[in-house]
Amino acid sequence: MKRLAPIIAGAIIMTTTSTEARQPNNEGRHLEQLRSVAPALEQYTQDRLYSDVWNRPGLSRRDRSLVTIAALIARGETLELTQYADLAIESGVKPAEISETITHLAYYSGWGKAMAAVGPVGQVFAKHGIKADQLAAIRPASLPLDEQAEAQRAARVAEQFNSVAPGLVQYTTDYLFRDLWLRPDLKPRDRSLITVAALISTGQVEQITYHLNRAMDSGLTEEQASEVISHLAFYAGWPNAMSALPVAKGVFEQRRS
Amino acid sequence: MKRLAPIIAGAIIMTTTSTEARQPNNEGRHLEQLRSVAPALEQYTQDRLYSDVWNRPGLSRRDRSLVTIAALIARGETLELTQYADLAIESGVKPAEISETITHLAYYSGWGKAMAAVGPVGQVFAKHGIKADQLAAIRPASLPLDEQAEAQRAARVAEQFNSVAPGLVQYTTDYLFRDLWLRPDLKPRDRSLITVAALISTGQVEQITYHLNRAMDSGLTEEQASEVISHLAFYAGWPNAMSALPVAKGVFEQRRS
Amino acid sequence: MKRLAPIIAGAIIMTTTSTEARQPNNEGRHLEQLRSVAPALEQYTQDRLYSDVWNRPGLSRRDRSLVTIAALIARGETLELTQYADLAIESGVKPAEISETITHLAYYSGWGKAMAAVGPVGQVFAKHGIKADQLAAIRPASLPLDEQAEAQRAARVAEQFNSVAPGLVQYTTDYLFRDLWLRPDLKPRDRSLITVAALISTGQVEQITYHLNRAMDSGLTEEQASEVISHLAFYAGWPNAMSALPVAKGVFEQRRS
Repeated sequence: MKRLAPIIAGAIIMTTTSTEARQPNNEGRHLEQLRSVAPALEQYTQDRLYSDVWNRPGLSRRDRSLVTIAALIARGETLELTQYADLAIESGVKPAEISETITHLAYYSGWGKAMAAVGPVGQVFAKHGIKADQLAAIRPASLPLDEQAEAQRAARVAEQFNSVAPGLVQYTTDYLFRDLWLRPDLKPRDRSLITVAALISTGQVEQITYHLNRAMDSGLTEEQASEVISHLAFYAGWPNAMSALPVAKGVFEQRRS
Repeated sequence: MKRLAPIIAGAIIMTTTSTEARQPNNEGRHLEQLRSVAPALEQYTQDRLYSDVWNRPGLSRRDRSLVTIAALIARGETLELTQYADLAIESGVKPAEISETITHLAYYSGWGKAMAAVGPVGQVFAKHGIKADQLAAIRPASLPLDEQAEAQRAARVAEQFNSVAPGLVQYTTDYLFRDLWLRPDLKPRDRSLITVAALISTGQVEQITYHLNRAMDSGLTEEQASEVISHLAFYAGWPNAMSALPVAKGVFEQRRS
Repeated sequence: MKRLAPIIAGAIIMTTTSTEARQPNNEGRHLEQLRSVAPALEQYTQDRLYSDVWNRPGLSRRDRSLVTIAALIARGETLELTQYADLAIESGVKPAEISETITHLAYYSGWGKAMAAVGPVGQVFAKHGIKADQLAAIRPASLPLDEQAEAQRAARVAEQFNSVAPGLVQYTTDYLFRDLWLRPDLKPRDRSLITVAALISTGQVEQITYHLNRAMDSGLTEEQASEVISHLAFYAGWPNAMSALPVAKGVFEQRRS
């Protein structure tokens, strides 16, 4: 995994002074800084994260890239985003998919987290010479909607919460399920994948059941879902992954029966 | 909403290199960067967030500014804070109220989050020529205290937790309810408003019941509380807003009966 | 507590322009900025946080430093990390212990949070002239393992979750409990201390019971655990501390009986 070595280095660039940041051989210097602070962590990053986790079967490197980007955006870890967005493009994630991931996470992780991702991703897009016609369209033709399923979802939410926040209930229908989720530049399965990744990464277990089921309805396999959780243990910390396990277990068991 | 256009731009400034950041026409360049990464997000920001959400009835733009600032501080999203602090002042939030919001959130969102807000807000205060006598006083005369209600609260918490952390129980009385909450530069209703906004924005649902009741006891209407949640869906992400709904529903129903 | 005065100042340095950041008398200027935004917060920081909390009996300043660093890393508050890492070294925390805290939190708070800590801590290490032989070793001889207890833990987790994420279950055994937890440069009691601090600071209450028990099995006293929570009320916000109280109460009561 040659591409991953600079990630460690790049992650540290922005925490140093701007004088250092402009020097040419930054990546080498910052890899050196990691060695001068936590050499064991550098070793674990190479041996375990890059050589092992990223090469596990069960989830492609393309999917791992999407999951990692979603986790970094949702957690506000913009320092690492430049390098992982770069890796994503080299792993086959389309620029339009990254663009659409940012837009999607504005709704699911908050506007500020999406806005903070624009700078780092913009640098990567500029480096790769990404043009406007490679981005997610502003108002593309929508994917078909399962009217019946959506009507049921809307009715269920309205019954629960119209007496509390009718505005939010309406926005959920109009902005999310009749618009955002139908945008074609990120497939429904991938849209669910990044949603689940964002929820797990930020410890928002309550919504995992709905979105994991939705992801699996759209084609995410049980093995892939399992690998998403294991992958995120490294990027979101063990406790977030462990808290996702009982929820995933419940979803898997219900779907198996 | 002319003032809001530069917010998008400004939000991205600090993620670029410092060379770029010093160039004069930054805002235009960074709006351009948003367009070059996620043009749909720019469109949604204009059409939905600024033109729609910020102009909804039920919650004033002044209150929306306070809620947004509280969310940004609590979530550590300092990149956007400069522009929203600017908007807050133009929407009628007094500098002393912003100053006091930072002090309040040191206790409710952690010292580091408050400290990180000082730089961005300081820039806005400098731009507006805010003087020391416009800030929240260090030791102002306290608002009157409802001794009986406070004694009951203190007794309840002491009974629950004196056997676990008597130090924290005492600090809660001395530093929070007999001092911070009585500071006059932020009205009790507004103090509760930012507390509820911070709790919802960080997914800390356990304390929402107490503080939402307190907010409504101090004058926050049900409609306003409902709008706070809908507003925060955009700034803290849908999952945090959805997790707040059942809690708010419980509070509303109990108060209606 | 002379050393703590610059912390306030330093915390704000990186939010200003890089031009300012290079000026010699930064700390004075930024203390001035805090005064120009929230003078009450400066007063509270001096009177309550530094003069009171940090000098409470029941938890040494060395332990408070470790707890604070863990909280800052876990919460991604790198702005304050430089100054608190500096304070930690002056309070008797060994560089190898800080190094190992970063490595440990890669697993417990996510890789990105650990990587973001490398820059600030690297600056402090450079200032103190810390050499490679003072850092945590890459592959040191392991501490002895309680094979029976570990076998029971592994069996319990495998029974629960092998059907969901066998990869994660295996990593938990191989990477955490048969490797990370046996690394000698951070004593088991301290390793548990930073784990508990990270969990409380990020509101991850579900894992507190296991890790608080483990901490107390390794020598953390009830009084120290209590002080950790009170200390973290200031650094992680009151709601996170309050949410930890019922969990700690349960642990204390069970262990007393």
